[in-house]
Amino acid sequence: MRLYDSLESGNCYKVRLLLAQLSRPYQLIEINTDRGESRTPEFLAKNPNGRVPLLETDDGVFLAESNAILWYLAEATELIPTSAIGRAQVLQWMLFEQYSHEPYVAVARYIMRHLADNHPRRAELPERRKQGLAAFSVMETHLQSRRFFVDETYSVADIALYAYSHVADQGGFDLAAFPAVRHWLERVASQPNYIAITDKPG
Amino acid sequence: MRLYDSLESGNCYKVRLLLAQLSRPYQLIEINTDRGESRTPEFLAKNPNGRVPLLETDDGVFLAESNAILWYLAEATELIPTSAIGRAQVLQWMLFEQYSHEPYVAVARYIMRHLADNHPRRAELPERRKQGLAAFSVMETHLQSRRFFVDETYSVADIALYAYSHVADQGGFDLAAFPAVRHWLERVASQPNYIAITDKPG
Repeated sequence: MRLYDSLESGNCYKVRLLLAQLSRPYQLIEINTDRGESRTPEFLAKNPNGRVPLLETDDGVFLAESNAILWYLAEATELIPTSAIGRAQVLQWMLFEQYSHEPYVAVARYIMRHLADNHPRRAELPERRKQGLAAFSVMETHLQSRRFFVDETYSVADIALYAYSHVADQGGFDLAAFPAVRHWLERVASQPNYIAITDKPG
Repeated sequence: MRLYDSLESGNCYKVRLLLAQLSRPYQLIEINTDRGESRTPEFLAKNPNGRVPLLETDDGVFLAESNAILWYLAEATELIPTSAIGRAQVLQWMLFEQYSHEPYVAVARYIMRHLADNHPRRAELPERRKQGLAAFSVMETHLQSRRFFVDETYSVADIALYAYSHVADQGGFDLAAFPAVRHWLERVASQPNYIAITDKPG
């Protein structure tokens, strides 16, 4: 298996974290998205949507979208529930992550880390922060009575939501008002075979 | 089963279309999102993220996110592949839909249909259209050599992408440059038990 990856990306970190926790070997191929390496004709032939992470399976099939890759790698492991409703709830939270969380929490972090102080996109930050805080509020409500997102068991839904939540401070988010989220972040970080977002595999 | 629904919403239409095609009976509860009915304390107790569609299962469990609802209803039917890679590819396209397609194609349609001609959010339209066209371009590339999105078979990935694609003109999109997408739209509309977005069930 090959993972086309950017160490900066929380979406890529989701896959690296899962692969570490499943002890699956793979080849890492670093793609520098800031230099346009995910938009070259060569890369677009692998993923027409021009994004990382991208998984190349042992059969040579290319699979895009971080949360689809998590599902592919974790199906038939204990990181995805066996019940129909539990599986759908994992997908519900992964879709929440991509629609209501990542565009605000991850993009605010990107703007803060990659764009100059006078860049016009800095004007997006107040709205991104407002929507990101709304996502943390939904998570806080859910986690007030739960240890993990689905079935009281660590799953790929937790991995998907952890990736950008645990570095939200880099996007200017203060999680002081979300104690249930902060305790859940600690529970995820204490799982076996945990790796940090900055840890290179191997 | 109960479906909390808005007839205006393509996300809700996905679920109504699937339920019609599976011939599953259900109770429809109309939620007027323009009047804030998805943000009342009563509704937020059912879905803290305040969105429709929302499915209430026969067991009284609330399931949010249109594509998670599709997965729940279609798992173990022929509308989801049996192979691990096929299933992951269906999820890939559903996540593409929510991240790279819906925020542009659906939101442009919303702005055009629901906001006054002088509303400040009309300023978003050029960027929404640019990103929406990029999504259609990715779909066109994929469909040039395929009849459906995954495994040459109609699946919930097609339903997810059809919902807002087939009314993209209402958001100001011209699909003339995307013939493969237009032929695929016709193939979806000719599936057994197809219903239109404006058809009330029952």
